[in-house]
Amino acid sequence: MITSIILLNVVRERINEVAEQLAEMEEVSEVYSVTGNYDLVAIVRVKHNDDLARLVTEQLVKIDGIEKTDTMLAFKAYSKHDLEAMFSL
Amino acid sequence: MITSIILLNVVRERINEVAEQLAEMEEVSEVYSVTGNYDLVAIVRVKHNDDLARLVTEQLVKIDGIEKTDTMLAFKAYSKHDLEAMFSL
Amino acid sequence: MITSIILLNVVRERINEVAEQLAEMEEVSEVYSVTGNYDLVAIVRVKHNDDLARLVTEQLVKIDGIEKTDTMLAFKAYSKHDLEAMFSL
Amino acid sequence: MITSIILLNVVRERINEVAEQLAEMEEVSEVYSVTGNYDLVAIVRVKHNDDLARLVTEQLVKIDGIEKTDTMLAFKAYSKHDLEAMFSL
Amino acid sequence: MITSIILLNVVRERINEVAEQLAEMEEVSEVYSVTGNYDLVAIVRVKHNDDLARLVTEQLVKIDGIEKTDTMLAFKAYSKHDLEAMFSL
Amino acid sequence: MITSIILLNVVRERINEVAEQLAEMEEVSEVYSVTGNYDLVAIVRVKHNDDLARLVTEQLVKIDGIEKTDTMLAFKAYSKHDLEAMFSL
Amino acid sequence: MITSIILLNVVRERINEVAEQLAEMEEVSEVYSVTGNYDLVAIVRVKHNDDLARLVTEQLVKIDGIEKTDTMLAFKAYSKHDLEAMFSL
Amino acid sequence: MITSIILLNVVRERINEVAEQLAEMEEVSEVYSVTGNYDLVAIVRVKHNDDLARLVTEQLVKIDGIEKTDTMLAFKAYSKHDLEAMFSL
Amino acid sequence: MITSIILLNVVRERINEVAEQLAEMEEVSEVYSVTGNYDLVAIVRVKHNDDLARLVTEQLVKIDGIEKTDTMLAFKAYSKHDLEAMFSL
Amino acid sequence: MITSIILLNVVRERINEVAEQLAEMEEVSEVYSVTGNYDLVAIVRVKHNDDLARLVTEQLVKIDGIEKTDTMLAFKAYSKHDLEAMFSL
Repeated sequence: MITSIILLNVVRERINEVAEQLAEMEEVSEVYSVTGNYDLVAIVRVKHNDDLARLVTEQLVKIDGIEKTDTMLAFKAYSKHDLEAMFSL
Repeated sequence: MITSIILLNVVRERINEVAEQLAEMEEVSEVYSVTGNYDLVAIVRVKHNDDLARLVTEQLVKIDGIEKTDTMLAFKAYSKHDLEAMFSL
Repeated sequence: MITSIILLNVVRERINEVAEQLAEMEEVSEVYSVTGNYDLVAIVRVKHNDDLARLVTEQLVKIDGIEKTDTMLAFKAYSKHDLEAMFSL
Repeated sequence: MITSIILLNVVRERINEVAEQLAEMEEVSEVYSVTGNYDLVAIVRVKHNDDLARLVTEQLVKIDGIEKTDTMLAFKAYSKHDLEAMFSL
Repeated sequence: MITSIILLNVVRERINEVAEQLAEMEEVSEVYSVTGNYDLVAIVRVKHNDDLARLVTEQLVKIDGIEKTDTMLAFKAYSKHDLEAMFSL
Repeated sequence: MITSIILLNVVRERINEVAEQLAEMEEVSEVYSVTGNYDLVAIVRVKHNDDLARLVTEQLVKIDGIEKTDTMLAFKAYSKHDLEAMFSL
Repeated sequence: MITSIILLNVVRERINEVAEQLAEMEEVSEVYSVTGNYDLVAIVRVKHNDDLARLVTEQLVKIDGIEKTDTMLAFKAYSKHDLEAMFSL
Repeated sequence: MITSIILLNVVRERINEVAEQLAEMEEVSEVYSVTGNYDLVAIVRVKHNDDLARLVTEQLVKIDGIEKTDTMLAFKAYSKHDLEAMFSL
Repeated sequence: MITSIILLNVVRERINEVAEQLAEMEEVSEVYSVTGNYDLVAIVRVKHNDDLARLVTEQLVKIDGIEKTDTMLAFKAYSKHDLEAMFSL
Repeated sequence: MITSIILLNVVRERINEVAEQLAEMEEVSEVYSVTGNYDLVAIVRVKHNDDLARLVTEQLVKIDGIEKTDTMLAFKAYSKHDLEAMFSL
C-alpha cells in the first residue's frame, strides 16, 4: 500500500465542498479541515505509484478552489494497526 | 474522536527511532517517514483535547531527536470509512 | 472551555469592519487590531470543538475582506484569573 | 488598558515551566500552549506602555527557555465584554 | 512621546506620491524611500496610543498604493538628543 | 545628510546594553527597542557614505550581542522638519 | 556537456501539457512531475552556455502556464555513467 | 523505474566528498554541484519505493556533512529517451 | 564612485526587453540575466547618491515589466582593477 | 567571458577580511560590502565554466567566515561597455 499525505490551501469559501469532493475519490481515505497554515489535509492510500500520479496530476487539477498542494509520499509506515487490512486495499 | 496531524522535523540520524517511539504511543495511530520538507507525519486520534495536550506538551518533549513540530488539529473529518470504529476509540 | 487564538490578515480598507463583525459573534470574546505582520487577532472561547469548527469553516468564510487566517488551538490555559467564570461559558 | 499579544517559541522541554512563570507575572492575564508554528501565546494587559516595555525588554529576558518572541501591540479592542472591568486594571 | 517605525511596501509607480502624502500627516515626522526589501520607512511620533491607532487603522488605509505595512512600536528610545523637544510634542 | 535605518536582531539578554552602546555612537541619532520580528531599530545620520560604511563594516561588528542586521539606506527624505538642522550635521 | 536542473511552478491545470512541451525541446533530456513544493523538474543537457541562455530567456517564456522557474546550473557532474555518451551530445 | 530528485544542502567544505559518496551509491545515477540555494542535486533511479525509502531514511543519514534534504518523487517522466533502457534497470 | 547592485524579478516574457532598457540607462554599467531566484542583476555606478535615488525611485518605475527590486548599496569596493577609471566616471 | 554574481553571508567580524581574500582571487573582478540581507557581493569573470566550478566548490570553501553563498550564473550580458576587453580575459 502506498500512502501519501497532501497538504492543501483552498479558496476559503470552498473548504467544505473541496473536502467532500476529495473524500468521494476512491484513492482518498480521509480528509480533514485543520488549524494552522493549511486548510485541508488529505490521506491517500493506493496500490501503485501511477494511481497517486493520476490523482495528483489529473484528478486534483479538476477540482475548483484548490490553490496550492504540497504532496508528501510516505517512504515507510509505522503503526500498531494493520492499515493495509483496515483500508482493505 | 479528535484527530490531529503533526508534521515533524527530526535529527536525520534518528528518523527511524523517533518514528518507532511515536508509533508505540497509545494516542498515535500512524507515523510516516515522508518526502519533502518534513521528516515525519504522525496521525493522532484521541477522545479528549486534554489527551492531545498531554501528548504534545508532555510526551513528545521527552522524545530525543525531535527538532520542530507543527501540530494541526482537525476541525472536521470527511471519509467513506467509519474511522471511529476502525480505530476503536 | 476551549480557547483558540486566530491571527488574521485582512484587506486594509476593511480592518475595522471585519473586527466589528467578528466581535459580534457569540464565540468571539475579543478582537484586537495589532502592530506587526498580522492585522487582527481574535480570541475565541467555546464549549465544544464543533463550535470552533463551525466558526472557522462556515462563519468566518462569510466575512468579506479576510485574506488569510492562522488558527491556533489552545492545549492548555495558564492564568491567575478564573477565565471560565469570567467569560461565563 | 493597553493589551499586547506575544507569540513565543520556547525550548520544547520547558514549555510548561515557561508558561507557568509567565502566568505568574502581574502584567500577564493569560498564557496558552497552542497548536501551529508557535509554542505559547501570552495575553498582556497593562496600564502604561512603560509597563509593557519593562515586561518585554527586562522581565521576559530573564526567563530561561524563550527562544524567540513576536510582540504585537493592540491598537484597538473590540468586545462585548467590559475587559477593563473584568481584568480590574 | 510614543514613537513607531512603519515599514511599507508600495506600488512602485506611487512611491514618491505615497511618501509625500505620509509626510504631510501631522503624526509622521519623517518618511524615507529606502534600499532593500521595503520601499518606504515612516517614523511616527505621537502623544497617545490612540493617535497611532487612528493613523494606522483609519488614515493609512485611505492612501492609495500602500500594499503592505509592518508597524513596529518603540518600547523605549535611546538617544543623546532630546527628541521630545526637537519634535516639539 | 545621509540617513540609514538599521533593523537589528540582538541576543535577548543584551537588548538594553546594545541599544545604549549604539546610541553613544556619534553617527547614531536614535535607537528604539521595538515590537515585532526585530529587536532594535537604529536611525543613522552621517555626512558621507564612508561614515556609514565604517559604522556598519567596522564599528557595529565590535558590539557583542548583535546577531543580524538589515541596513537600509535612505534614497530620499520627506519631512516637514528641517532634519539637517535639527540633527546639526 | 553543460547540465542544468530547472525547478518549475506551473498553473495546476497545465502540468501535463507544459511537461510535454518541455520534453519535446531538443535541449531538454527529461521532465518529471514531482511531489513537494515544485510541480515539474526539467533536466537540460546542452553543449554551450548560450544554448541554455536561449532556452531559459527566449524559449521557456513562450510556454503558457509556467509561473516561476528556478534554474540551477551544474558546476560538476558525478556519475558512474558516461552521461555525455548516453545523451549523445 | 521510480525516479526521485533530491535537493541537498551540505557543509561547504564537504561538497565534493558528499557528491562522490552519493555517486557511488547503486541507486544514484547522477549528482551535480549546482548554483543557487542548494549545493547538490542527486538523481535517484530505482525499481521499488522501498529502495528509495532505504536510501533516504537509512543510507543518506550515514553520510557526514549533509545538513538538509528535500526529496521529490517523480510521478511521471516525460522524455524522448528510453530512460529505463539507458539506465538499464 | 557609488556602486549599487540591483536584483530584479521581471515578468518572464519581458526579460530581454527590460534588460536592454536598463543597459541603455547612463547610470547602469551592466545587466545580466541570471540563474536562480532573480531574473536580472543590474550593476549601477554613479557619482552621487541622488543619481541612484533618481534612478530607483523615478526611472526604474517607468520600465514596464519590473515586478520587484532589491537594491543593495555598496559600502566599499574591493578590486585589483581601477574601476573608477575603467568606468570613466 | 562567463560572468557570475555571488551573494554571500559572512560572519560579521570577518566581512573586511573575506572581501579582501576574494578580491585577490584571479577569477574575482570586484567585491562589494553591501546594505540589505547579504553581506558581500562578488562579481566573477572567467573563461570557462570549469574555472567557475573550481572557484565555488574548491576555493571558496577554503575561506574562513563564509556562512552561505548564492551563486547566480549570467546567461547573457547587456552593456554599453566592452566588458570582455575591459577585464582583458
